[in-house]
Amino acid sequence: MRWRYILNTVGVLTLFFGATMVLPLAFDLFAMDRSLMPMVKAMGVTLAAGAILTLIFRHEKTETISQREGMAIVAVGWTAIGLFGALPFYFSGAPFCFVDAFFESVSGFTTTGSSILTDIEGLSRGLLVWRSFIQWLGGMGIIVLSIAILPFLGVGGMQLYKAEVPSPVPDKLKPRIRDTAVVLWKVYALFTVAEAALLMAGGMSFFDALNHAFTTMPTGGFSTKNASVAHFDSVYIDVVITVFMLLAGINFSLHYQLLKGRPLAFWKDSECRFYLAMCLILTLVVGFNIYQTAYANAGQALRYAAFQVISIVTTTGYATADYEMWPAMSQTIIFLCMFVGASAGSTGGGMKCLRIMLCFKYCYKELFAMIHPRAVTHIKIGGKAVPEDVVRSVLGFLALYMALFALSTVLLAGIGVDFVTALGAVAATIGNIGPGFGLVGPVENFSQIPYWGKWLLSWCMLLGRLEIYTLIILVVPEFWRK
Amino acid sequence: MRWRYILNTVGVLTLFFGATMVLPLAFDLFAMDRSLMPMVKAMGVTLAAGAILTLIFRHEKTETISQREGMAIVAVGWTAIGLFGALPFYFSGAPFCFVDAFFESVSGFTTTGSSILTDIEGLSRGLLVWRSFIQWLGGMGIIVLSIAILPFLGVGGMQLYKAEVPSPVPDKLKPRIRDTAVVLWKVYALFTVAEAALLMAGGMSFFDALNHAFTTMPTGGFSTKNASVAHFDSVYIDVVITVFMLLAGINFSLHYQLLKGRPLAFWKDSECRFYLAMCLILTLVVGFNIYQTAYANAGQALRYAAFQVISIVTTTGYATADYEMWPAMSQTIIFLCMFVGASAGSTGGGMKCLRIMLCFKYCYKELFAMIHPRAVTHIKIGGKAVPEDVVRSVLGFLALYMALFALSTVLLAGIGVDFVTALGAVAATIGNIGPGFGLVGPVENFSQIPYWGKWLLSWCMLLGRLEIYTLIILVVPEFWRK
Repeated sequence: MRWRYILNTVGVLTLFFGATMVLPLAFDLFAMDRSLMPMVKAMGVTLAAGAILTLIFRHEKTETISQREGMAIVAVGWTAIGLFGALPFYFSGAPFCFVDAFFESVSGFTTTGSSILTDIEGLSRGLLVWRSFIQWLGGMGIIVLSIAILPFLGVGGMQLYKAEVPSPVPDKLKPRIRDTAVVLWKVYALFTVAEAALLMAGGMSFFDALNHAFTTMPTGGFSTKNASVAHFDSVYIDVVITVFMLLAGINFSLHYQLLKGRPLAFWKDSECRFYLAMCLILTLVVGFNIYQTAYANAGQALRYAAFQVISIVTTTGYATADYEMWPAMSQTIIFLCMFVGASAGSTGGGMKCLRIMLCFKYCYKELFAMIHPRAVTHIKIGGKAVPEDVVRSVLGFLALYMALFALSTVLLAGIGVDFVTALGAVAATIGNIGPGFGLVGPVENFSQIPYWGKWLLSWCMLLGRLEIYTLIILVVPEFWRK
Repeated sequence: MRWRYILNTVGVLTLFFGATMVLPLAFDLFAMDRSLMPMVKAMGVTLAAGAILTLIFRHEKTETISQREGMAIVAVGWTAIGLFGALPFYFSGAPFCFVDAFFESVSGFTTTGSSILTDIEGLSRGLLVWRSFIQWLGGMGIIVLSIAILPFLGVGGMQLYKAEVPSPVPDKLKPRIRDTAVVLWKVYALFTVAEAALLMAGGMSFFDALNHAFTTMPTGGFSTKNASVAHFDSVYIDVVITVFMLLAGINFSLHYQLLKGRPLAFWKDSECRFYLAMCLILTLVVGFNIYQTAYANAGQALRYAAFQVISIVTTTGYATADYEMWPAMSQTIIFLCMFVGASAGSTGGGMKCLRIMLCFKYCYKELFAMIHPRAVTHIKIGGKAVPEDVVRSVLGFLALYMALFALSTVLLAGIGVDFVTALGAVAATIGNIGPGFGLVGPVENFSQIPYWGKWLLSWCMLLGRLEIYTLIILVVPEFWRK
């Protein structure tokens, strides 16, 4: 492994990242807010660190990177950006100690949306924008940037893309990754602008609309309000955000196809059909379950069910209702949704619909094989046979996901968190959702998690966002062998 | 499928089963107990039903059965025996309504040990013996009987054996299944006698010693006391039962090897090493965790930790302590142990150590494949490469197990059980453990589960005991197609 090259790339990434701090800085300057100086300091440190890394680890242009180098760049890069992203929070002092700043930053970049803040509205405007903006960058931005910028640096990025999406590579949109990145970036930005405009049309201020658009499209879920989206208590705003969460959970290449004038793009994609059908069915089941027990009005039950189911399935994590007060069946469904997640190629987290679908088909195939032992069958998705190694990789992913979920839950419980909170907190962070159960439910936050628990959950968030493999491979001794 | 043949076989099984009711009858006769007449009635009905089935569905001897017929025999046979086993409870009236009698009977035969009884000590001696004895029959007895008797009826039983243990077939002990069955039966009986003798030596009455020996070896967990093993409050009894639970969780072919004079049999088997190491490590971790928080004395902490960890890992389900009062980490470990289970080829339930080991090795292989994409590797257990189709079958099993666990939990919560109880009750029944969490914890019972919930959990117990595939395959339409 060429560590000079890896650190050089991370340096360049850090430089670009430092430059993006100009946006919150602008808000701080405009309002002459108290977080102006911390933001300047953070930007300075980040740019300096990026420059130093780039200069110390000078490296000639290279056309190829090995898979291992790609994975090291992804893992080191995300951790570094999590650290630098924490600086504005850390430098601005209370309520942020270092671990809290890091947790909030990683939660942002991984588009998780778990927060340690008890009073979000007490933050300065600059920090609020920064908090939302890192989600926007994180959700698709940083991924797309990595794919778009690294080739510019001479990286033949397919391996990297493979590292980000280890298993089912979605239909290639365009042969060149850089072009793909630019195209998806445009779709992403377009949706963000559209959502912000629609939210403003519903009476939201420019500031709130921008922040919520910044955190809907990456399925992040940071809000500018303590009560999350429930604060606005508006059917219109609930509907707009529900629709955009739903859109954010769909593979972005399908959005591109739709915008290019293929109206049946969603329908033709089997994962998208699965995803939409699942959202619809679960909304109806939860709606029926909470009707009369939690809400007297059927329309209200449906509204809150749709919002909450889609918020969790897409791994956004906004709240308009406290689902912990709902009947047990709805709670259980919400808990399980944390594992399913949205579509592959979307900004959502979790295991992803494609993998769940594949796993179902696999189970059916195994049952079929018991009935017809001599029949040779293949798993098909969208009419095409899925290669054996993709199936194997998906099953490995699911097993690793569950194993790491189990291990992290034991560790978190060992740190002193109760059983239900530990289950909920780990499910919510490894799936990049945001709120969990128990003490970290939708109307609570992560401030009461003990010190080492916050480090553990930060690791879980990275683990989930980097699709397990990319991060966990660093602890396999074989990886470090020559 | 030759239904005549299947029902004939089930009829013969029922006849044999009816004959076993002579044991509780003897206890009832001896004490002239109030359950004498119900027992006579139950025996009469069972024998009559067996005779009628056998006579109506006469069938010539056959040397071969198809895999499908084998699975149908297993599924129909177990359900039928669950029903007939419920008769002594049902006929003896309160506290048993029909669903409770069926639940208790299925819990016995599947060696689960979940009970709907609030006052166990209020039962007659005959019913207590019946309750323990069906566990003894169920644990290994019925399985072994099925393998031993069916070939006697002209069944080439290998397919059936395959149906009982769908995936990793343990090292063949002897080529003929009937011989194997007889050998394992002897080992099983020997251990049962040894345990009963040791318990009596510790001051237990003959009646209690027999009953506990009947329910330890099948990892069943029904006790004759309301407080389970905690009732005796004796270090000696705890140690004896812990050791026999540990033995019951080991592949019985290894016991046979050991008794044949191969002292390293346990050590040479990689699953057994895994199983023993896991029991040891988890005992130490839980012991350390409950020391000072729940017990002031290190010896006590270790005693209760060992008993409870081994009781749950082996899926026995006896209790000497209320683990729901333990710290969160221990609770989480206990919960996860419910999924792991004991060794394949033992009487334990759960996913089985072998499958978990295989899954770990599989994950490592996938990580290795990412680092060395061109290397061809095989998963090895005990130095031998595991065939691809066994690996596939194991992964399918694990996925189906988790999927059915999730589905059943949602359904149980929908019936009106709270989230934690639903998680715990389904984990405890599908894993054939016994006690769960929440309202069905080690010091509670299943009496408060709603009517339909008891049916659902009975199905979960059968599902787990018949290794998922055998039962679930009946709902695949392909199974019924010609």
